[in-house]
Amino acid sequence: TIKESLEDVPAVDVAELLEDLEPEVAVVIFRLLKKSKAADVFTYLSSGKGVELLEVFSRQQLSDVMNNLEPDERVALMEELPGGLTQRVLNSMDSENIALIRRLLGYPPESVGRLMTTNYVKIKKDWSIDRSLSHIRKYGRNAETVNVIYVVNEEEKLIDDLRLNQLIIADPDLKIEDIMDYSFEALSAFDDQEEAVRMLSKYDRVALPVVDSDGILVGIVTVDDVLDVAEEETTEDMQLMAGMSALDDYYSQTNMLEMVRKRIGWLILLFLGQMFTVTAMAGFEDTLAKAAVLALFIPMIISSGGNSGSQAATLIIRAISTDDIKLSDWLGVLKRELMSGFMLGLILGIMGTVVISTWMVFRGEPMSIAVFLQSLTVGLSLIGVVLFGNLSGSMLPFIMSKVGLDPAVTSAPFVATLVDVTGIMIYFSIAVALLTGVVL
Amino acid sequence: TIKESLEDVPAVDVAELLEDLEPEVAVVIFRLLKKSKAADVFTYLSSGKGVELLEVFSRQQLSDVMNNLEPDERVALMEELPGGLTQRVLNSMDSENIALIRRLLGYPPESVGRLMTTNYVKIKKDWSIDRSLSHIRKYGRNAETVNVIYVVNEEEKLIDDLRLNQLIIADPDLKIEDIMDYSFEALSAFDDQEEAVRMLSKYDRVALPVVDSDGILVGIVTVDDVLDVAEEETTEDMQLMAGMSALDDYYSQTNMLEMVRKRIGWLILLFLGQMFTVTAMAGFEDTLAKAAVLALFIPMIISSGGNSGSQAATLIIRAISTDDIKLSDWLGVLKRELMSGFMLGLILGIMGTVVISTWMVFRGEPMSIAVFLQSLTVGLSLIGVVLFGNLSGSMLPFIMSKVGLDPAVTSAPFVATLVDVTGIMIYFSIAVALLTGVVL
Ligand SMILES: [Mg+2]
Ligand SMILES: [Mg+2]
Ligand SMILES: [Mg+2]
Ligand SMILES: [Mg+2]
Ligand SMILES: [Mg+2]
Ligand SMILES: [Mg+2]
Ligand SMILES: [Mg+2]
Ligand SMILES: [Mg+2]
Ligand SMILES: [Mg+2]
Ligand SMILES: [Mg+2]
Ligand SMILES: [Mg+2]
Ligand SMILES: [Mg+2]
Ligand SMILES: [Mg+2]
Repeated sequence: TIKESLEDVPAVDVAELLEDLEPEVAVVIFRLLKKSKAADVFTYLSSGKGVELLEVFSRQQLSDVMNNLEPDERVALMEELPGGLTQRVLNSMDSENIALIRRLLGYPPESVGRLMTTNYVKIKKDWSIDRSLSHIRKYGRNAETVNVIYVVNEEEKLIDDLRLNQLIIADPDLKIEDIMDYSFEALSAFDDQEEAVRMLSKYDRVALPVVDSDGILVGIVTVDDVLDVAEEETTEDMQLMAGMSALDDYYSQTNMLEMVRKRIGWLILLFLGQMFTVTAMAGFEDTLAKAAVLALFIPMIISSGGNSGSQAATLIIRAISTDDIKLSDWLGVLKRELMSGFMLGLILGIMGTVVISTWMVFRGEPMSIAVFLQSLTVGLSLIGVVLFGNLSGSMLPFIMSKVGLDPAVTSAPFVATLVDVTGIMIYFSIAVALLTGVVL
Repeated sequence: TIKESLEDVPAVDVAELLEDLEPEVAVVIFRLLKKSKAADVFTYLSSGKGVELLEVFSRQQLSDVMNNLEPDERVALMEELPGGLTQRVLNSMDSENIALIRRLLGYPPESVGRLMTTNYVKIKKDWSIDRSLSHIRKYGRNAETVNVIYVVNEEEKLIDDLRLNQLIIADPDLKIEDIMDYSFEALSAFDDQEEAVRMLSKYDRVALPVVDSDGILVGIVTVDDVLDVAEEETTEDMQLMAGMSALDDYYSQTNMLEMVRKRIGWLILLFLGQMFTVTAMAGFEDTLAKAAVLALFIPMIISSGGNSGSQAATLIIRAISTDDIKLSDWLGVLKRELMSGFMLGLILGIMGTVVISTWMVFRGEPMSIAVFLQSLTVGLSLIGVVLFGNLSGSMLPFIMSKVGLDPAVTSAPFVATLVDVTGIMIYFSIAVALLTGVVL
């Protein structure tokens, strides 16, 4: 039957199937699933489809789904719920689950407390291995993972974590304390969720325990959710680095007005930043009027600086966020990027001088000192601008961190805008110095 | 003793400690570690420090470390080894391990075959639960994980995977086939490693089996390594998106000349691309000579297009790489981004017209039709340029994929360069149309 075969399909694949169906049809298929499977499937739906379904669920269905969700998934759902649905959804839950969700929503947004699940197995140190295994058999069914088992004392304080295979391999008559090493890594419920990514990845764990400020075990964070957080946080960083506010949901789940709202802020800010470029250039309007040819190379020069700045900013932001470099490494980075910026600028500068003079001769100008000096002006400006782009791209992420902002706010467009103003000043200063009496 | 206390410190923390020590000192501490712990610590060292240590290891130490490494870690090491060390390291290994590494290195670079480990537990379907558990007790010690157990048939073909807790919970007298569902997800050894990230993340697993083209179980991929791959692949994407080649190692592990080499290619290409901008603008040199004031707004206009392009490219690249949108969704994206590009352009265009006319009046020009028309030229250009930036930023990732390139190659600098050429043409065409007879 359909019913039986649906049970063998992984929850995520059932969700994928439902995603393309009308809510009225999807809800019928939903009814064929066992309660816990149905709740599982629900967690894999996109936020849009999830809300659609909640709206057509019967009272009983809503209550079944909500009460069978894993606690962490229930929190994630409540966080995203449109205001109009919150009360109806809350009403559908058991009082016990309502109390739990209130407690979990008490932790700050994006904290480990909101990411953790409260379905885990804990044991006591004076239990035998045998008793512990029976306990796992009994309570393990509802736990999100039994790969790691937690040992707590009388006050519910975490005192060790054991891998299930340590228990399997051990002599059944031994006590838990005989195989304990009293050494464990734990997260605080108040830590940022990014700390969970960092710790699980560093210690290569499939789950980590979460304690409150008194060291009492309050939940566990599992690696599947950490993979999702890592993906979200990276998407967020990329969006910031592209010069926009981070979206609250996937691209496909964000409506167009919301999208415009997230993008227009930085576009306006950067546009206004360009008023400095306009004003800087206005100071050289007479120079430009004398030799309009100077204008031709403006986009080339400023964009080269923006490009090296975009490279540098990305390298440094990512190195900071993967813990490859620390904020205290800024001086070493500065020295290094000064040097590499100079090398990159030198290569582009030499090439620029050659390419531009060739281009001018091709255009029909006679080979002359004037042509050489104009090309040299471009070449020297390239060195200065690429160096400056590299410098600001690599140092701004440190400065952002220092003033308490996300280093990822150092976007390529932001660095480019900074370089535009500076580039104009570098270029025209060199032009005035080299070309006065030649073409000026 | 130091020796005992070192055993209680997680391998990754010991590695962090060694990282800051001279190789001669580090090697002494290394000698205090148990063989398997030593090998474990070794895998957490940076590539630079690892090579330093290999060079000072005694023959015995080298052999101990190499033979105790997990197979996947051994592959990763061999991949990174400088040529001069390869022979010495190969000589230090048992013939069995040499054969294994030859086999694993036979899979393509960045494939699942190179990421998998061959230390896992497999059982047969006609075994009892009890016999299976004894088997796990005996062979589980060397396995990288016993959280998942694999069932193979007589031909070593994978026929199911079972979670350890399914075995723990089951009646010990049952047979394995009684708890099997013959349904499993597996990776192919020839898949790209990114497929491992996608699958483990999608199915929320801590490990996935790997089969060859005949369905024979050849290894397993574990989530800790998948987290590392996800991080590396994202870093790679970000570097491509910043307009450079991806680094082979961390920023901190890449020397300056290598860094310059990875960055200069795109800088040169983009610089040459700017020759189109120069040439395009050269066609309007007479116009510029008549009204140098036109030049002032060039950076502002082209950068606004680059900024909206950078936003669009990033949104789409990331949405593609997280499977949020499919390549076949291009038409929907096109419609949507045409619309949002127009809205963004309109907002900036109106603002631009107002801001520029105000700025011109502030500068001392009389309020006049000429001032208004010049500002309007900027405003209309902004609409066109922002729309074009959005269009190329959102469509290029699809085109890149279509021609077999990584969508992430659509870097912000690349889009910006494209927009620069187009922006110049849009701007000057509008200027000629609106301002002839006014300032031209
Ligand atoms: Mg422990
Ligand atoms: Mg790791
Ligand atoms: Mg969970
Ligand atoms: Mg999950
Ligand atoms: Mg965050
Ligand atoms: Mg962040
Ligand atoms: Mg199965
Ligand atoms: Mg997942
Ligand atoms: Mg491994
Ligand atoms: Mg690993
Ligand atoms: Mg790859
Ligand atoms: Mg990639
Ligand atoms: Mg630019």
